[in-house]
Amino acid sequence: MTDALKQRVFEANMALPAFGLVTFTWGNVSGIDRERGLIAIKPSGVEYETMQASDMVVLNLQGEVVEGHYKPSSDTATHLELYARFPQLGGIVHTHSTYATSWAQAGVSIPPLGTTHADYFAGAIPCTRPLSTHEVNGEYELETGKVIAASLTGTDPLHMPGILVAQHGPFCWGTTPEQAVHNAVVLEEVAKMAWITVSIRRNQTPMDDYLLQKHFSRKHGPDAYYGQK
Amino acid sequence: MTDALKQRVFEANMALPAFGLVTFTWGNVSGIDRERGLIAIKPSGVEYETMQASDMVVLNLQGEVVEGHYKPSSDTATHLELYARFPQLGGIVHTHSTYATSWAQAGVSIPPLGTTHADYFAGAIPCTRPLSTHEVNGEYELETGKVIAASLTGTDPLHMPGILVAQHGPFCWGTTPEQAVHNAVVLEEVAKMAWITVSIRRNQTPMDDYLLQKHFSRKHGPDAYYGQK
Amino acid sequence: MTDALKQRVFEANMALPAFGLVTFTWGNVSGIDRERGLIAIKPSGVEYETMQASDMVVLNLQGEVVEGHYKPSSDTATHLELYARFPQLGGIVHTHSTYATSWAQAGVSIPPLGTTHADYFAGAIPCTRPLSTHEVNGEYELETGKVIAASLTGTDPLHMPGILVAQHGPFCWGTTPEQAVHNAVVLEEVAKMAWITVSIRRNQTPMDDYLLQKHFSRKHGPDAYYGQK
Amino acid sequence: MTDALKQRVFEANMALPAFGLVTFTWGNVSGIDRERGLIAIKPSGVEYETMQASDMVVLNLQGEVVEGHYKPSSDTATHLELYARFPQLGGIVHTHSTYATSWAQAGVSIPPLGTTHADYFAGAIPCTRPLSTHEVNGEYELETGKVIAASLTGTDPLHMPGILVAQHGPFCWGTTPEQAVHNAVVLEEVAKMAWITVSIRRNQTPMDDYLLQKHFSRKHGPDAYYGQK
Repeated sequence: MTDALKQRVFEANMALPAFGLVTFTWGNVSGIDRERGLIAIKPSGVEYETMQASDMVVLNLQGEVVEGHYKPSSDTATHLELYARFPQLGGIVHTHSTYATSWAQAGVSIPPLGTTHADYFAGAIPCTRPLSTHEVNGEYELETGKVIAASLTGTDPLHMPGILVAQHGPFCWGTTPEQAVHNAVVLEEVAKMAWITVSIRRNQTPMDDYLLQKHFSRKHGPDAYYGQK
Repeated sequence: MTDALKQRVFEANMALPAFGLVTFTWGNVSGIDRERGLIAIKPSGVEYETMQASDMVVLNLQGEVVEGHYKPSSDTATHLELYARFPQLGGIVHTHSTYATSWAQAGVSIPPLGTTHADYFAGAIPCTRPLSTHEVNGEYELETGKVIAASLTGTDPLHMPGILVAQHGPFCWGTTPEQAVHNAVVLEEVAKMAWITVSIRRNQTPMDDYLLQKHFSRKHGPDAYYGQK
Repeated sequence: MTDALKQRVFEANMALPAFGLVTFTWGNVSGIDRERGLIAIKPSGVEYETMQASDMVVLNLQGEVVEGHYKPSSDTATHLELYARFPQLGGIVHTHSTYATSWAQAGVSIPPLGTTHADYFAGAIPCTRPLSTHEVNGEYELETGKVIAASLTGTDPLHMPGILVAQHGPFCWGTTPEQAVHNAVVLEEVAKMAWITVSIRRNQTPMDDYLLQKHFSRKHGPDAYYGQK
Repeated sequence: MTDALKQRVFEANMALPAFGLVTFTWGNVSGIDRERGLIAIKPSGVEYETMQASDMVVLNLQGEVVEGHYKPSSDTATHLELYARFPQLGGIVHTHSTYATSWAQAGVSIPPLGTTHADYFAGAIPCTRPLSTHEVNGEYELETGKVIAASLTGTDPLHMPGILVAQHGPFCWGTTPEQAVHNAVVLEEVAKMAWITVSIRRNQTPMDDYLLQKHFSRKHGPDAYYGQK
């Protein structure tokens, strides 16, 4: 019953090293089957080279493991919180990809500087506030999810399919695990170009908002005309 | 009749991921058959991995599709405008390549800093002005072509075979689709080196104009002596 | 008797070019068999392409070659000094990897800026003081080991599994040769992200110490809960 | 008679794309047979993908082609001038490699910042003065050789096996064509690390001279003890 979900989540996880987004065992992707109320996620600290679809861990929405011979990713509680808050999400990914993580370490939101950004993200990509001592020493991974959700208040998460957790790194999402990984690849490229842009021109101002809206709506929503649909 | 044109344009498009100039389905190359008054261009949003020569879309110079089962690139109107303005052009390419796009996002022309630049571009590589609200919300892709053309006023486009569209990314061209892609590769390398140069020495002044002219004419025009011709 | 040690050290050395940490013959890994009082190390200036396990040089703890047809790495005395000072160490690696070496050349310790750093290094990664004329012109490689050890005074070397030697490059270590190489890969990635971070935000302050402690102890020590143990 | 020379020079040229030092047909390597008074060099503008050993062009020291069906590299006069001035040289290479070229474009000598530099270059890697209008519009490639030679006055070229030509790019050399290419690879890595170093710490001062001398003499000269000799 869960084989299809595990296979999809497995393949999305394997895409992370293929796209150069992870080193060693870092990073994790999950996917959700909302009808059955189950998620599948990468096991904690297992190497990509030998990982198989059957190694994915299946949990219910209370975070109880219902299938699998491994412990789930240590970030599972963050994923669960985001699925609970945002019913639009079908897949979530966390990485320590180089350029997005560097912006997260700088504690700076990525300003929209060009159409590559605008094709996917309908505004600045937010960097969360740092977690408090209390949050870090309490239910840390759950609190991480809450802080992400708080940064997205009033935003459709599919219009802002990624975020930077301060002093940590990016989380991305989408309607499917594959789309979440796709958005993580785009975020990394957008982060790299934003870094180079501001090193060419310090304090470059954001792009014109009408150009941002134009490009986002060219690819998303009722007036989209990019692609074959 | 159009098979040869479609094959050439297909191969030029496939060179974009091979040279590392595109991510996912970004980027597009077109070519023109001026005798028949036809262009071929990449279909919109189709993946390079599975794309075939027969997927190229053929249009007449009024932008009407005359052959093909896909919608053409969303940037088609920009290509058509440039072919109409500049009869020297045989191929055009658009990418979001990392370093050239970063200069476009910075809104800064790439100053000529060394002979690599001068071997291909006879002066600073211009960055266009930003498009106005009216232009973006009107016939956006056509207006993009017009703004590019305006930036090239008084310039032989084969002496300046590429440009940066502000807040967007590069367009390059040549007498053939292959040459357009060749120039896009060079622009990306020139943009990378210019970024590193100005980060070593802020506000580095342009190279000596006599050296620029020497190198450009070593490779181009009646006195060229580089290569085997 | 020493075949297993030589094989392990050989494989750890071969991982250096595989991970992109060395150019030509640069870099070296050693491992120690504390029961027998022997170390194995890469021979000096031998190319990775043709190197074999049987080329590893075996020395006793006084630095006398007891097995091998090659001269040992010119950095052997540094390795021996570190094994003598720190009984926890089972493997040591030295490279000139690009980003870590650049911080060493800048003479600046790498501040902890995010959880990637904190997952492996329990504080700033120190840069040693420069060696004196006397030290350089005396027993240079031995003195290098002494200066590294002095920088680690009061620190558990397994909580700080790498260091930058000023004007030179990184040394890393672990309980095994493989773990030493693993840490060298992490240091290089941490060094790259720290460089990008401070170029986005000059003089970025270190991460919150409670977050650093949380992440280090998530992976290390009695309360670790990352991975499958 | 010249087959061995052509084969060596061909292989050294083919190493340039393998090491990532050239784009398209850029770059060239030559080698000299001083007994016969002949050099072999890459033909101008020929693609590496299809180039063969028999395509190398053989010239005498007056620059007259004595063997070959192609025109020699447009930079041949620079190579000939350097061979004439420095009898120690057996091979010369010119590239537009990214990082070394960026320093050349900045017009700044590469300061010695660490032992990687010192292992190969016994001081700052000089950047030449810009060529004058007269020099550029006269015998440009010959004048380039003269300006390089002038920058090396009083220096053993084997102690400084590379240089930056201002607004242009690097030339490197060695006792053989292979060694020239080896030094070009090292220069590129040294240039990359120097760029990162000065971007971490603006105006970083050069390394201690006694450390530079120590490392250079560890690999070169009568007291060398690196490697197996």
